[in-house]
Amino acid sequence: MNYQFSDKLAALKPSAIREIFKSLTDPTIISFAAGNPAAESFPVEELAAHSADIFAECATAALQYNITDGFPPLREAVAKRQKEIFGIGRSLAAGDTFDDMTVIVSGGQQGIELACKALCNEGDVVICENPSFIGALNAFRSCGAVTVGVEMEEDGIDPDDLERVISENPRAKMIYLIPTFHNPSGITTSEKKRRRIYEIAKRHSLPILEDNPYGELRFAGEELPTIKSMDDGGLVIYCSSFSKILSAGMRVGFVVAPEPIATKMVVAKQSEDVHTNIFFQMLCHRFMTKSDLDGHIQAIRALYRHKCELMLGELERELPSSVKFTRPEGGLFIWCTLPEGSDMSAFVKKALEKKVAVVPGTTFNCDTDAPSLSFRLNYSTPSDEQIVEGVKRLGEAAREFIH
Amino acid sequence: MNYQFSDKLAALKPSAIREIFKSLTDPTIISFAAGNPAAESFPVEELAAHSADIFAECATAALQYNITDGFPPLREAVAKRQKEIFGIGRSLAAGDTFDDMTVIVSGGQQGIELACKALCNEGDVVICENPSFIGALNAFRSCGAVTVGVEMEEDGIDPDDLERVISENPRAKMIYLIPTFHNPSGITTSEKKRRRIYEIAKRHSLPILEDNPYGELRFAGEELPTIKSMDDGGLVIYCSSFSKILSAGMRVGFVVAPEPIATKMVVAKQSEDVHTNIFFQMLCHRFMTKSDLDGHIQAIRALYRHKCELMLGELERELPSSVKFTRPEGGLFIWCTLPEGSDMSAFVKKALEKKVAVVPGTTFNCDTDAPSLSFRLNYSTPSDEQIVEGVKRLGEAAREFIH
Repeated sequence: MNYQFSDKLAALKPSAIREIFKSLTDPTIISFAAGNPAAESFPVEELAAHSADIFAECATAALQYNITDGFPPLREAVAKRQKEIFGIGRSLAAGDTFDDMTVIVSGGQQGIELACKALCNEGDVVICENPSFIGALNAFRSCGAVTVGVEMEEDGIDPDDLERVISENPRAKMIYLIPTFHNPSGITTSEKKRRRIYEIAKRHSLPILEDNPYGELRFAGEELPTIKSMDDGGLVIYCSSFSKILSAGMRVGFVVAPEPIATKMVVAKQSEDVHTNIFFQMLCHRFMTKSDLDGHIQAIRALYRHKCELMLGELERELPSSVKFTRPEGGLFIWCTLPEGSDMSAFVKKALEKKVAVVPGTTFNCDTDAPSLSFRLNYSTPSDEQIVEGVKRLGEAAREFIH
Repeated sequence: MNYQFSDKLAALKPSAIREIFKSLTDPTIISFAAGNPAAESFPVEELAAHSADIFAECATAALQYNITDGFPPLREAVAKRQKEIFGIGRSLAAGDTFDDMTVIVSGGQQGIELACKALCNEGDVVICENPSFIGALNAFRSCGAVTVGVEMEEDGIDPDDLERVISENPRAKMIYLIPTFHNPSGITTSEKKRRRIYEIAKRHSLPILEDNPYGELRFAGEELPTIKSMDDGGLVIYCSSFSKILSAGMRVGFVVAPEPIATKMVVAKQSEDVHTNIFFQMLCHRFMTKSDLDGHIQAIRALYRHKCELMLGELERELPSSVKFTRPEGGLFIWCTLPEGSDMSAFVKKALEKKVAVVPGTTFNCDTDAPSLSFRLNYSTPSDEQIVEGVKRLGEAAREFIH
């Protein structure tokens, strides 16, 4: 049979990262390619205890169908926490001009995809930071949307560039941003740029999808206001998850968005998976209300501070000074850039020969044909020993590569 | 802000069933409106024990990211069982002309949505039985596809009608069928019609999406071959789940499809939720391999046989003979049809006044503007007492309504 696929999927390739993840069966390879939270960051014993309690106290409800919006006590707990920590969530009752609504989704990934599905027709444009999170780029493409990039600078995209890209793309329907501990670059957008970006989006009535999966993982520098906290106009869809603070494999995330948008996303979610695994929604709620989530997050921050500092120190020692890298204040990633004129793909291949895996920067390009001098390193997954040994191998590769 | 939504979602309404589910907070209402498995069908103690074992034996893997295709041991166990029970799954190694691939999805709902996403552009047509499962119809609509119906008869759709609808719809990209214990009608398509439908689809190179969520729940009559078991041409996408045999709330389903189609669906799934909750994939695998799944399913069949027979008996006694109803051999639903000229919506309203909820037939129409004389009853969720009392109320409503 000669299969005919939809235009939006015919061209879409599996994410290079997932493919690398799949091929990392060689135990002699040290992987800096993942985006996984550290295995030691999972609070296994407490989750096991809460889990046993759910089976004992409310098993039937935890195994039966539930409503699409999410487990109401979890929605409440999430809304409360986002309000307290990030100043997120408007309500008419509090004198705001609109209501935000909190919805539970199957990981932040689903929040991203649903936002695009709700707002974009095939051929519409999503404006993204360039580079950007491959999972989001592919989600937009899988909806038939076109991704157009605004180049990342050291403190986020240039708002004037954003304005230009908006004017050049009349079919732009959404701006996608990861302002805090950006994936893949590790960059945090400055407060000044956040405010200007919000003002520009508002002037153009262009919704912003603010993706903040790493927001709670700051281990250096000062907290900056989320763009959603500035949202007096009702144009920001805020998306985050429990993946980096509790468990990635359970696939529980959340969205805070103006009620009309959130409602459309719920309708779309109903058609995708009816609702998110209800047992784990209950588990998240129990952990939030009966365990010490703040203390747990402090421990993860300390762990990642240590791992990041270790990797940065090793990179400084092992890499030629012509290779530049970012210094993240949180999150999971460091972004390395080879000197002008280098063949990045050849370097990544050489690194793999030396048994260290990194993700080529082209993976994260909005324009899939554009070149890149960069590659992404992850420090949350490898052990300390692997970080030291892996960077040493990377250094060897670099010294052989850059003459 | 003046929100502009995508065309495909602007018109889509939340599923009436989910809305009814949401509004059923009045404890005096007896609901025949759900599609939930019986609460007593969940093997709580065994799931709790397997769950504790997972936390003890492989917690980290159960909480970490995993691959999109699904937990490999679960995929294997599912493929083996589908082969044994339903004769499903071709392989080049066995001398077939193509390979089928088994993929784990977040409930059967996701399998349905992914199939449409992979095959249909906006404006393409999905041919469905009329009436059909509202969750599927809305999934197709949420992809921008148009649903066109072929009328249901007592033993499935008329193949000649199908042929006519195909010829009238050059943009038809897929045929969606629930041949066994159809939702909402409870009808099972005859073997003869299954064979003719398959032959027609093959001749037109038109993929079939065979949805079989209730296939294991036969409590009367003889097993019929699935359409997928006839698939020597590689055109059938088979979709089912654990929702009706283990737990609906965990959202674990599966797809068996020719490898090129399954691969595209995996790419689309990656953008929707990365993968299905891995803990519960492991739980399903343990239940399949360490518990008595067959014995458990026998018990559910006996339970539903009893509930269905009870409801049919009560309907016979309580309803005027002018109201017709189907006699399912499995599954969850009975389909009642009022005499010609009746106002079905008014009847459903009257029933609700009598404190019994049913789902109006219009909900399940491919053409949302078309009328219906029918309504759907569910017997798996209510208790025996509720079945007796609820049908009594339905009878009162009918006697007041039909003069």
